Amino acid sequence: MIQTERTELQRIAERGSRDWNIVNDILDAGFLAAVGFSVGAQPYVIPMLYGRRGRNIYLHGSAASRIMTRLETGIAVCATVTLVDGLVLARSAFNHSMNYRSVVAFGVARPIDDPRQKIDALRTISDHLIAGRWNDVRGPNKTELKATTVLELPIDEASAKIRGGPPVDDQDDLAWRTWAGVLPLGLTSGVPIPDAGLVAGVELPRYLLERSVVPVETRERRSAT
Amino acid sequence: MIQTERTELQRIAERGSRDWNIVNDILDAGFLAAVGFSVGAQPYVIPMLYGRRGRNIYLHGSAASRIMTRLETGIAVCATVTLVDGLVLARSAFNHSMNYRSVVAFGVARPIDDPRQKIDALRTISDHLIAGRWNDVRGPNKTELKATTVLELPIDEASAKIRGGPPVDDQDDLAWRTWAGVLPLGLTSGVPIPDAGLVAGVELPRYLLERSVVPVETRERRSAT
Repeated sequence: MIQTERTELQRIAERGSRDWNIVNDILDAGFLAAVGFSVGAQPYVIPMLYGRRGRNIYLHGSAASRIMTRLETGIAVCATVTLVDGLVLARSAFNHSMNYRSVVAFGVARPIDDPRQKIDALRTISDHLIAGRWNDVRGPNKTELKATTVLELPIDEASAKIRGGPPVDDQDDLAWRTWAGVLPLGLTSGVPIPDAGLVAGVELPRYLLERSVVPVETRERRSAT
Repeated sequence: MIQTERTELQRIAERGSRDWNIVNDILDAGFLAAVGFSVGAQPYVIPMLYGRRGRNIYLHGSAASRIMTRLETGIAVCATVTLVDGLVLARSAFNHSMNYRSVVAFGVARPIDDPRQKIDALRTISDHLIAGRWNDVRGPNKTELKATTVLELPIDEASAKIRGGPPVDDQDDLAWRTWAGVLPLGLTSGVPIPDAGLVAGVELPRYLLERSVVPVETRERRSAT
């Protein structure tokens, strides 16, 4: 990975990593990116679902949207994915922190025009969100494909940051009589809500049953190691 | 709120709102912002904890960090907060969606230099994250205050977007024999993990006990109404 001034991690280098495997693991664990771009000196940050394949991030949106028409012109993009693992409560206000995993990825997006490649990219996004779903749904028709802009964002540079584990307090604060530790946090699935108009006899698909509710503290302990 | 081209919501106006109460509710329900700024044509998006008071967002970070030294120069900032409420599974790939609440806020950050105002802003961030925590911890000393940059971001413009409820399918797709509905998602707290070096007899504070684990589906139903 090219290391330039843009992604150099100052100060908290121990929390940063340019290792592609770490970057990919975080991108694969998430599904929502904060996509940033500039119009003049004005930054915009828009939440967008994404998929990843290799070193590419795939984005999609309405072809009529201003965001898509801006992004497809080949401007610089910063896509940031953040997974929150917990709040870190220290004895001092100063040493409070957050356990998290994040990726900041830079690149220039390009529109995918070929209908077959477009469907392929949309499927990548769908698989990324809920593996197995694509086979169960009506695929996009010509009108829908035309109404959708699909972008491929090759990651030119990326950096990952991870913070895990307990609070790190000053030695002098350890006798402080206050609770310290970690409040685990994590995005959790609830019980699926069937649509009112469901065709009789249609059951909850396995890929939703299997999208298991991983206990938050398990993830926290895992991320702390 | 001033309406300019910058925050105008195209196309999905029914999901957009400039109402301050809606903006504030979303900002208060979240705690992590994707903070965007530009250096030349290059956008950067960095996850940051925040607090809100009135129409101001408060941010903090290491005074030595490049992000803080950039932000405090008075450049345009876009702070985006997104709360994920669920994945919306439709009969067609095209009509899949996400239930979410998001705010995109624009402004120019200014550093807070006065130590008392600085502590006040840090307390606002702390209260926003875990109300009640501030009184239990050792407050920042002079060295820590000096090492911390605190920024006030007055929100000049903001827009909110909310999507809730079931999938909206094409009439022709309703007979499709596939499961459709909503998979609720939400950030959930796990069981607090006490630090190994906790002073004997120190109990879990009430504000952590009360940070109740709201069932995800309850939130989803609430957001859908």
